[in-house]
Amino acid sequence: VEKLQEIAEAKWFTNFITFVIILAGVVVGMETYPSVVEAYETELHILNEIILWIFVAEVVVKMGAEGSKPWNYFKDPWNVFDFFIVAVCFVPGAGSYAVILRLVRLLRVLKLLSALPRLQLLVGALLKSLPSMGYVTILLGLLFYVYAVAAVFIFGANDPMHFETLHLATLSLFRVVTLEDWTDVMYINMYGCDEYGYDGVEHLCTDPNAMPVVASAFFVSFVLLGTMVILNLFIGVIMNGMEE
Amino acid sequence: VEKLQEIAEAKWFTNFITFVIILAGVVVGMETYPSVVEAYETELHILNEIILWIFVAEVVVKMGAEGSKPWNYFKDPWNVFDFFIVAVCFVPGAGSYAVILRLVRLLRVLKLLSALPRLQLLVGALLKSLPSMGYVTILLGLLFYVYAVAAVFIFGANDPMHFETLHLATLSLFRVVTLEDWTDVMYINMYGCDEYGYDGVEHLCTDPNAMPVVASAFFVSFVLLGTMVILNLFIGVIMNGMEE
Amino acid sequence: VEKLQEIAEAKWFTNFITFVIILAGVVVGMETYPSVVEAYETELHILNEIILWIFVAEVVVKMGAEGSKPWNYFKDPWNVFDFFIVAVCFVPGAGSYAVILRLVRLLRVLKLLSALPRLQLLVGALLKSLPSMGYVTILLGLLFYVYAVAAVFIFGANDPMHFETLHLATLSLFRVVTLEDWTDVMYINMYGCDEYGYDGVEHLCTDPNAMPVVASAFFVSFVLLGTMVILNLFIGVIMNGMEE
Amino acid sequence: VEKLQEIAEAKWFTNFITFVIILAGVVVGMETYPSVVEAYETELHILNEIILWIFVAEVVVKMGAEGSKPWNYFKDPWNVFDFFIVAVCFVPGAGSYAVILRLVRLLRVLKLLSALPRLQLLVGALLKSLPSMGYVTILLGLLFYVYAVAAVFIFGANDPMHFETLHLATLSLFRVVTLEDWTDVMYINMYGCDEYGYDGVEHLCTDPNAMPVVASAFFVSFVLLGTMVILNLFIGVIMNGMEE
Ligand code: NA
Ligand code: NA
Repeated sequence: VEKLQEIAEAKWFTNFITFVIILAGVVVGMETYPSVVEAYETELHILNEIILWIFVAEVVVKMGAEGSKPWNYFKDPWNVFDFFIVAVCFVPGAGSYAVILRLVRLLRVLKLLSALPRLQLLVGALLKSLPSMGYVTILLGLLFYVYAVAAVFIFGANDPMHFETLHLATLSLFRVVTLEDWTDVMYINMYGCDEYGYDGVEHLCTDPNAMPVVASAFFVSFVLLGTMVILNLFIGVIMNGMEE
Repeated sequence: VEKLQEIAEAKWFTNFITFVIILAGVVVGMETYPSVVEAYETELHILNEIILWIFVAEVVVKMGAEGSKPWNYFKDPWNVFDFFIVAVCFVPGAGSYAVILRLVRLLRVLKLLSALPRLQLLVGALLKSLPSMGYVTILLGLLFYVYAVAAVFIFGANDPMHFETLHLATLSLFRVVTLEDWTDVMYINMYGCDEYGYDGVEHLCTDPNAMPVVASAFFVSFVLLGTMVILNLFIGVIMNGMEE
Repeated sequence: VEKLQEIAEAKWFTNFITFVIILAGVVVGMETYPSVVEAYETELHILNEIILWIFVAEVVVKMGAEGSKPWNYFKDPWNVFDFFIVAVCFVPGAGSYAVILRLVRLLRVLKLLSALPRLQLLVGALLKSLPSMGYVTILLGLLFYVYAVAAVFIFGANDPMHFETLHLATLSLFRVVTLEDWTDVMYINMYGCDEYGYDGVEHLCTDPNAMPVVASAFFVSFVLLGTMVILNLFIGVIMNGMEE
Repeated sequence: VEKLQEIAEAKWFTNFITFVIILAGVVVGMETYPSVVEAYETELHILNEIILWIFVAEVVVKMGAEGSKPWNYFKDPWNVFDFFIVAVCFVPGAGSYAVILRLVRLLRVLKLLSALPRLQLLVGALLKSLPSMGYVTILLGLLFYVYAVAAVFIFGANDPMHFETLHLATLSLFRVVTLEDWTDVMYINMYGCDEYGYDGVEHLCTDPNAMPVVASAFFVSFVLLGTMVILNLFIGVIMNGMEE
């Protein structure tokens, strides 16, 4: 046990694990190039297996270092995170699709978050500042919910592409709050889908309805309120995170 | 009276009202799906009636808790807000259109603002910081007004889609200040509507006029001034709101 | 003289002038609607004349209040500003074009800046904070100049619509720094004007040249540097302005 | 040596060099206009040579001012920067292409950074604040890397224009994080390339695949995380830079 404790706390051990994480990242990055995958299929497979077993060994060493109370390992949430990332590679069905298998392996790169103490701290600070912004988040959620439900009732018939259902409306409002081509969404409902924005998909415009006053008031007010609350949230999280 | 006061201040009463508000939100959200409305029309109607009468009961309880001076209830602006939301449901004409009836019911979700004390505080802080930013708002209004009037005089003939009237110009300038495809508006007036931006609506371009220098100076200066003043306003409101 | 001084400092005088400025703003706003101009041409003309002579009277009163040293009036830069706005209405040629005459009258609305002391203060604070940001401005100018000259040399032949001349390149880079459809500009130079972005104006694409690496490096680096420096400038101005 | 030291520290010497740098900037700016280059080819060539030799003389003077230890000149990183900019003009191959020669000459304008002490300070402050933001940068890199690799695996087949290779995916994600038409990228993968966004380049859409849930979750989460981390980085750099 003392031997394991020594290893687990050794500088070279941490550095080695960090190196293996970066290696795992490089390998999964190379797998995005089909030509590389074809040429080095066996090598990449072996490398992936080695990396996996090194991470298993890391878990074993750290658990063993706890001596007779291996469950203490799980008291650190970052260890739970590490364990989960390794464990998910052993889920039976995961390997049946190449894409899912690769995405699962991609998760290993996230172990970098737990391997670098200061990165742990940074992410921890950002996460801890979230609850303190909880009420701003509720306010934002309320704003989105009220506007999304209203948008389905008011604009759902005229603009089904953006406001047919509640989740589509939420997505469209998120787009509006990022200011991404928000006037296109507004103009469709100001001028009616027969006059604007449904070129090439005219068959979706079954119930055109021009609402110049309602649409401009709706979207301008949402842009003002939404960007202000979201800016408030972002600045709050960053300021709280910086203080720590 | 004492009994009512006890209820009005009880933890379970606040929690129950909060739960009913969330229920009202879920119900109005489900009403956005036509299939749900069709299948459960009676149930939703009954549920909506129950919710409404619970909110009426809440008003009665809180008024009654004031004893012999029920008008004290209206001293808290949040109570006025609550009362208004309930009262609007009893306006006679409101129920004649399904959309308006639903929008009126949607307002009930906003009671969450008054039900959660910390949300009340947050919204109060943001609202209170607005007057202190009053002069930045006047400056912003002046900027918009001067540029909008100038835009109608200078660009109204060339680009009627964006600058025909004063309110259309104000909307277009708001679009420019959010940086949403602002160069399209600028290019129309730099190159003339016969050369840019009126594809498919050529009949609106009756008086093309290319103004490369004037248009670029106008829009670049407005983007610089407008974004700076609006950023100033937003940061001011957020900073003031945070201090409280 | 004492009488004039009394008037110039009287509360009712300032309020009256503020009212006349707002009236001038309303009149010029109504002039944006052709139907109003047609119906009330004489009335608007008379009103404009009255407003102008009230402002002339204001200058006379304030100058007279200085007693035997009327030039002291010009010691306050806001008075120079007021004087200029009134004086420009008497420039002979100004009235020959209706548009210019109206723009000149529109300037009167800006007198609101000098009429409201706190607005004076706010604008003064923003203007005073500019010199302290002088070196950030020089840095921004240097960044724009170097990138604009380089853009003309590298992309001028492939993309004349955006980079033919130095001032067009500066305008295009300003567009890029506001993040307005900046990828369109990048893709034109990454894929060549024959492959992207010159639909309908193919005759302008005389010298197509695809530069995927150079264009992406150029625009990504400019977006990063440009937005950072411009954000630095804006935050600096706002923070300095707030401190005062 | 003392004579050289005196010159190197003289006010007029610094001012003269600053003037020559600005002159070099004006000359390279004029070279962007083909008509100017044609009309004054010889004059511009001579001017460029003179400017180059003045900068060589500046290096010689400053080196000479160090006395018997000319290598001390290189102890100031800004001197290394100056030396590099002059030296690169003498690289043999550089002059073979007119464009490269001009870009090399354009670099001289950057000497303004080292010539103005306060600009030196400002850039130094910004550069020094970068390492303190090192972990935010690593976090940002990790975020981009994980999302880019995942995007190639998930969206590479459906949307080769944006996600075929890892570097193309990184560029597309950078576009998304600047909020530049990010919904277009999302809609292509929500509705499939046969339904959205591949008009005119249908031959590239070989493997259409509509993923409404995966695509919207992917891009919305990336926009939220990416903008927050990048805003954190920018605000951090600016705040650190301001403190100095
Ligand atoms: Na945008
Ligand atoms: Na855009």
